[in-house]
Amino acid sequence: MTSGNMLIAQSGGPSMVINQSLVGAVLAARDTSKIGKIYGALHGIQGILDERFIDLRKPSRKTLETVAATPSSALGSVRRKPTAEDCAAIFRVLHARDIRYFFYIGGNDSAETVHIINEEARRAHYGIACFHIPKTIDNDLCENDHTPGFGSAARFVASAIMGDNLDNRALGGVKIDVIMGRHAGFLTAASALARVHPDDGPHLIYLPERPFSLDRFAADVKRVMKRVGRCVVAVSEGICDADGTPIIAKFITETDSHGNVQLSGTGALGDLLARVVKEKAGVSRVRADTFGYLQRSFPGVVSPTDAREARQVGATAVAAALSGKHASGSVAIKRKPGKGYAVTFTIVPLRAVAKNTRHMPAAFINRAGNDVTPAFLDYARPLVGPLPVIGRLT
Amino acid sequence: MTSGNMLIAQSGGPSMVINQSLVGAVLAARDTSKIGKIYGALHGIQGILDERFIDLRKPSRKTLETVAATPSSALGSVRRKPTAEDCAAIFRVLHARDIRYFFYIGGNDSAETVHIINEEARRAHYGIACFHIPKTIDNDLCENDHTPGFGSAARFVASAIMGDNLDNRALGGVKIDVIMGRHAGFLTAASALARVHPDDGPHLIYLPERPFSLDRFAADVKRVMKRVGRCVVAVSEGICDADGTPIIAKFITETDSHGNVQLSGTGALGDLLARVVKEKAGVSRVRADTFGYLQRSFPGVVSPTDAREARQVGATAVAAALSGKHASGSVAIKRKPGKGYAVTFTIVPLRAVAKNTRHMPAAFINRAGNDVTPAFLDYARPLVGPLPVIGRLT
Repeated sequence: MTSGNMLIAQSGGPSMVINQSLVGAVLAARDTSKIGKIYGALHGIQGILDERFIDLRKPSRKTLETVAATPSSALGSVRRKPTAEDCAAIFRVLHARDIRYFFYIGGNDSAETVHIINEEARRAHYGIACFHIPKTIDNDLCENDHTPGFGSAARFVASAIMGDNLDNRALGGVKIDVIMGRHAGFLTAASALARVHPDDGPHLIYLPERPFSLDRFAADVKRVMKRVGRCVVAVSEGICDADGTPIIAKFITETDSHGNVQLSGTGALGDLLARVVKEKAGVSRVRADTFGYLQRSFPGVVSPTDAREARQVGATAVAAALSGKHASGSVAIKRKPGKGYAVTFTIVPLRAVAKNTRHMPAAFINRAGNDVTPAFLDYARPLVGPLPVIGRLT
Repeated sequence: MTSGNMLIAQSGGPSMVINQSLVGAVLAARDTSKIGKIYGALHGIQGILDERFIDLRKPSRKTLETVAATPSSALGSVRRKPTAEDCAAIFRVLHARDIRYFFYIGGNDSAETVHIINEEARRAHYGIACFHIPKTIDNDLCENDHTPGFGSAARFVASAIMGDNLDNRALGGVKIDVIMGRHAGFLTAASALARVHPDDGPHLIYLPERPFSLDRFAADVKRVMKRVGRCVVAVSEGICDADGTPIIAKFITETDSHGNVQLSGTGALGDLLARVVKEKAGVSRVRADTFGYLQRSFPGVVSPTDAREARQVGATAVAAALSGKHASGSVAIKRKPGKGYAVTFTIVPLRAVAKNTRHMPAAFINRAGNDVTPAFLDYARPLVGPLPVIGRLT
């Protein structure tokens, strides 16, 4: 009764809920007689090329549930764009093992990988259902209202800024927090959810969607210092100058095979901005923290909505592949219009998601380009869930 | 029936539970008829000098409980060592307001401040009970088995490393995490609690108590890469070379009025170590994160033991002041000998705690100086509480 075996893998940067998607897909696959073996490839396409597989029928339901609640990619990950030769090698492996369902969990680079493999399969007349399962804390996939992984990372950022705002309130000066987001500012924007009282930070928010000027930044900080007496700044690691050159690119030049400059895993941008505030804004106590990989992997900081939806996109991909309605596609999350928060899941073409980056809409960014709008807060709140309650004496 | 008014303030770096100590002291004070007014000074001794007080009889029990569960210093904090002139000015304020109970919550710098004020009071024959309430995430107060704030910060560090170890396991390479701790390595050592499986990081731990050599560090990383295929490093911000010079002091020179070099709020040390690994150990993917202020202020990441004990040291200080047995002192936590975890609270002389730093005992550090011992794990586990459960497929 089976129509072939299945292979699933994880790719790109880990997230808090990428294992929810894995478990959602595996449980759906274990629930049907159409799928034979369920292979998990270790470290994405690298594991297919090396034929490093595990049997995903073996783990108990209890183990799978524990894995689902654990951060990072349980199958391992990879940042590798397959070449034409890689694709030929991948097909030999898929064919030899009669794999007819291929699921790849990741961001837009990963969607591109699925797209390339799918095109190669069509050219080779190899019948296989190729589905991309969305994941990215950057929230930058086209066709999606939001992406699994964003809500939990945004929850980490908003919580962290809540605490850091109180730290800054206690000791004063300027605090700069550098937040992940290569081209899209959604995660940095989520820092605005930390505000409860009128004087709460972040007092300034800088996104990659607007050109960043060191002079304007220094002037903004000076103005906030005058008004509030202290200043918390949330800034995206991906901020660029007016020419589109990342501010950090002047300091670091490492790139991966997708051509991405290394932005994370370094404190260079925060330290540069701290120096600018000291020199140009004349503030003596200036500190910079770069939230780094904690944003995507801190155990326990999970948005319940994010966890539930991440599970559902995995199950939806398997259901779509089994239905036969689509030979390939990417699962997309759409928000239902109306008052309450509700979503639907649809299948969109791989091409529509692959490689492209969704940016913060103009309606989410204030005119001065140093804050978000109430429309963004309305958009983000249901994705993040209720935040910690903050008590104050003054 | 009252024998005078009370003043309480917070000083030094905030923590997750410093407000528990404040609330513990305030509730104890509100429970006796011996104390009249309860002043809270804003921003430590700065608030006394400026006479910026709030009335701590006013907040409801509910507000106080919310504040107790909120990170950072609700009264604001300060890093200022009082001069002789400051002390004279402080006495004028205390005398004018008939303040006869003075409580100051903070670390060893704060204990020194209380000690100076107490000595000044004795010279001036001004009758006042001066008590230091311990707080430091560094866990470096003498006379204490451990200090309030440490358990929660250690919980943050151990949880963060758990997630970061999985992130490194997914994508490989070397990850360096820089952890707070100027002179004492307790917090960095707590990263070892993250280990569950034999291949789990941190694979190397560097503490300020042992001289740090860049060459030995590179050789250590190379060896771990060969054995495990990846490497997670936990390193204290306070590591020093064989001459006792902080490694970071070569890059940053800002100091506060206690003469402390700025170690936190910069990514410089992590970036330096990452460069060393790339160049000397020949690893291409190297990332460094500096956990920064999140370690002491991330809402919700609290050790239940730490929260309970922080509340108790506040109450104990007030009880000691009221008892009249001691004119001054610092509350110290002692661990009871025996199998289960239990503590007692005692009053020790201010001099014994002021300024001095407790270091990691030799029995807690391995011979090679790049890891902790099982004795440290036994010591730290009950302070941190149960950590997240990690699921794995491989």
